[in-house]
Amino acid sequence: MIDLNADLGEGFGRWELTDDDALLNSVTSANIACGFHAGDPLTMRRVCERAAAEGVRIGAQVSYRDLAGFGRRNMDVPAAELAAEVAYQIGALEIFARAAGAAVAYVKPHGALYNRCVRDTEQAAAVVEGIRMAGAPLPVLGLPGSELHSAAAAVGLPVIDEAFADRGYRPDGTLVPRSEPGAVLTDPEQVVARSIAIAEGKDVAAVDGRPLRLPARSLCLHGDTPDAARLARRIRDELTDAGITVRAFA
Amino acid sequence: MIDLNADLGEGFGRWELTDDDALLNSVTSANIACGFHAGDPLTMRRVCERAAAEGVRIGAQVSYRDLAGFGRRNMDVPAAELAAEVAYQIGALEIFARAAGAAVAYVKPHGALYNRCVRDTEQAAAVVEGIRMAGAPLPVLGLPGSELHSAAAAVGLPVIDEAFADRGYRPDGTLVPRSEPGAVLTDPEQVVARSIAIAEGKDVAAVDGRPLRLPARSLCLHGDTPDAARLARRIRDELTDAGITVRAFA
Amino acid sequence: MIDLNADLGEGFGRWELTDDDALLNSVTSANIACGFHAGDPLTMRRVCERAAAEGVRIGAQVSYRDLAGFGRRNMDVPAAELAAEVAYQIGALEIFARAAGAAVAYVKPHGALYNRCVRDTEQAAAVVEGIRMAGAPLPVLGLPGSELHSAAAAVGLPVIDEAFADRGYRPDGTLVPRSEPGAVLTDPEQVVARSIAIAEGKDVAAVDGRPLRLPARSLCLHGDTPDAARLARRIRDELTDAGITVRAFA
Amino acid sequence: MIDLNADLGEGFGRWELTDDDALLNSVTSANIACGFHAGDPLTMRRVCERAAAEGVRIGAQVSYRDLAGFGRRNMDVPAAELAAEVAYQIGALEIFARAAGAAVAYVKPHGALYNRCVRDTEQAAAVVEGIRMAGAPLPVLGLPGSELHSAAAAVGLPVIDEAFADRGYRPDGTLVPRSEPGAVLTDPEQVVARSIAIAEGKDVAAVDGRPLRLPARSLCLHGDTPDAARLARRIRDELTDAGITVRAFA
Repeated sequence: MIDLNADLGEGFGRWELTDDDALLNSVTSANIACGFHAGDPLTMRRVCERAAAEGVRIGAQVSYRDLAGFGRRNMDVPAAELAAEVAYQIGALEIFARAAGAAVAYVKPHGALYNRCVRDTEQAAAVVEGIRMAGAPLPVLGLPGSELHSAAAAVGLPVIDEAFADRGYRPDGTLVPRSEPGAVLTDPEQVVARSIAIAEGKDVAAVDGRPLRLPARSLCLHGDTPDAARLARRIRDELTDAGITVRAFA
Repeated sequence: MIDLNADLGEGFGRWELTDDDALLNSVTSANIACGFHAGDPLTMRRVCERAAAEGVRIGAQVSYRDLAGFGRRNMDVPAAELAAEVAYQIGALEIFARAAGAAVAYVKPHGALYNRCVRDTEQAAAVVEGIRMAGAPLPVLGLPGSELHSAAAAVGLPVIDEAFADRGYRPDGTLVPRSEPGAVLTDPEQVVARSIAIAEGKDVAAVDGRPLRLPARSLCLHGDTPDAARLARRIRDELTDAGITVRAFA
Repeated sequence: MIDLNADLGEGFGRWELTDDDALLNSVTSANIACGFHAGDPLTMRRVCERAAAEGVRIGAQVSYRDLAGFGRRNMDVPAAELAAEVAYQIGALEIFARAAGAAVAYVKPHGALYNRCVRDTEQAAAVVEGIRMAGAPLPVLGLPGSELHSAAAAVGLPVIDEAFADRGYRPDGTLVPRSEPGAVLTDPEQVVARSIAIAEGKDVAAVDGRPLRLPARSLCLHGDTPDAARLARRIRDELTDAGITVRAFA
Repeated sequence: MIDLNADLGEGFGRWELTDDDALLNSVTSANIACGFHAGDPLTMRRVCERAAAEGVRIGAQVSYRDLAGFGRRNMDVPAAELAAEVAYQIGALEIFARAAGAAVAYVKPHGALYNRCVRDTEQAAAVVEGIRMAGAPLPVLGLPGSELHSAAAAVGLPVIDEAFADRGYRPDGTLVPRSEPGAVLTDPEQVVARSIAIAEGKDVAAVDGRPLRLPARSLCLHGDTPDAARLARRIRDELTDAGITVRAFA
């Protein structure tokens, strides 16, 4: 059994990025942008309505406040500010989730904040504090072994490990940085095969060829490439054909 | 019996504007900025905590998205966008109110949106739609006879009439525009006397001297003038001395 | 002889909108977004470099400060603020134009500011004041008969009349609002035919079928539709085939 | 001979921070905020006009794009973006300086960007590239020995060393971080005495008491404290009384 998650609602006003409607046909968890790196209120509302209608789980994709950099620029945000910013974003999304008859069901940091919280104890703790401020004990979706997961577990928040179907891994289980060769897998066959291997708990090949096990309850698909929606559909279909249940994590 | 409301939390990051702590000692309802014209998340959190600790009622001071203009520039925001923006702001504030053990108890539009909703049926309806999207049947605080109050009443939201202790009124009960003489009362004696008259349901003098009755369950005090906190304190004390109960509207 | 202008550089950070490189192969004047409704600094730099390399004239596409609304929401910006905002945008673009060995050669307001300046004397005067603040007597590109052109002409700025190849016109020469039928021409044949008619100074059909003369030294092409670049290329080719010189206005 | 510089124009819209008019009576160089961490266009215009009228030199105080954090949060902005952002800000300010009959005469990074460029070779080079893009060989005002000064000098831009009259120094000449004791000098007597020592090229006491020489052609005064304007006036007067010429660097 595996969950499929993707970033949705990453347009802003006139600008669109993700093919939200198409992706909602394939994923089981939608990481919805909350306005800090992308995501205007009307888009948030529409994606929540559509996700609820499709039975897709709604997650808050929280970010640094950085529209110009799409949340991809590492920022030294003081912990108290960061915690409040995370809570603010969850609260804003919660309104639209509730209005659609659903609820925010998990939290996943976006971009630079995601990467920072792999190793930065203070910012990881701030994100967790922001989640707790928001009230419900929301699960955190992130990298196995990350500081974010440690901080979440330490206060009793559930953690959901995820793996990337289209990213290269080093032998130690960390991602190959985008500036290095092998960072991104572009062959759909390979991405599909890796998705199935991850879902079945089998080894995948690290960037140096060595076998690597990627424990994951959720598989992250990227939504901002031209063929994203089609690839997502294919991955879902082939997972199903392989006898794997595609379903949101409990 | 009368409620005293003021705008709070109207700084942004490094910038401060309102003396929130001092004002919270005098008012019974705090219109807290939600990030669109002012109000960063950390300030929102702190003002909510402090308001809850003081027993001051928390209201969402929703605005056009306009930090550069402090929400004072009239904008033709399409209805669907405006409704979603209002819901977004209420949701964000709700998180901090709840974290402080309280709740958002009412909504008051800010600046240009407030003025626009006096006469503009479409934007007034959009604000009300945004409030309903946010879930609870929150009361609307605004001008008696405004389109906002009509739109709110039409869908069963409570409306709270407010009056301004320091603004000049025309004989028809509308405010003297800031560009005209008599728009703002600067004499503290006069402001205090008017506050008591309003609270006691007595006539005040319109800008032309004619008597005018201002029905109001809440009195709006301005928080962004140098002596705002002191004047607020004095109004509260003199209202109490005059035998009037100062308390948040039910 | 006719000039072809289009809006370019209307992405922002991660978001792209206009196919700038392709359009620069067809147009003779590039209205470059300056950061207030779209246009991040790096995009501005790149589009200026490319425009200069292609010999395309650079214009400042100035706007209300409104990223969330893409500058399409009418705003009551006080005149002094608006003038300074216009100057700010021209100054920012001027740096990139100069760095590319060119210069800002004209100014065209964007979106809601463009529409407002057709009839609003005060905002039209503020835009003109902003242009003058920027130093050089830059020509203004806009609608014939607009208040913007009157204000520009009154202080000696050149005015360039433009017409729209793909918009419906009322018999009085004003545009059919986008909310009404006939506002946008979608048939490429019709758009091309109209382009040639305008360039040759012949009548076109108003929305009610009556003949209408559209005096114009520049033809505005829209850049944000999927086929914009191809249509622009075709218009340019067919104008040339019809013996019309396509060249930036002097 | 010494130059006195301070940050000015650091309000934004409704919010004010620095007492610009008062400070312009004392300083010889004004680091004017350009809109990225503070500084709306109308404020920029007014401060430029006033600075020009007072004969105060105008400098571009360039920053990360971070209104919410007042430019005080370190950001990993890619070099090409940062260079373009620096050029954009200089260009915008240049318009207002020219309109006031002056010109941008130097560049000083603000806040986190200033600190980052002390040690970060890549960002320092990007700031210098942005300055060069802006055209004129503008001097850079910063910390002696910084990477920013190295990068500027490497391409032939003049560098101006500055010292801080109210900050604690470590024995190696770096500033005591604000998180540590002794970071800020609050005693006006001590600040004045240190100002004179720096201007006369005499030793000051490092935080551990050891003597330290601070070579500087400009003295930075802080403008955002309540008594900033009065202290600036006093420093200027006492410098003059001590026989030191207070004048903008050549």
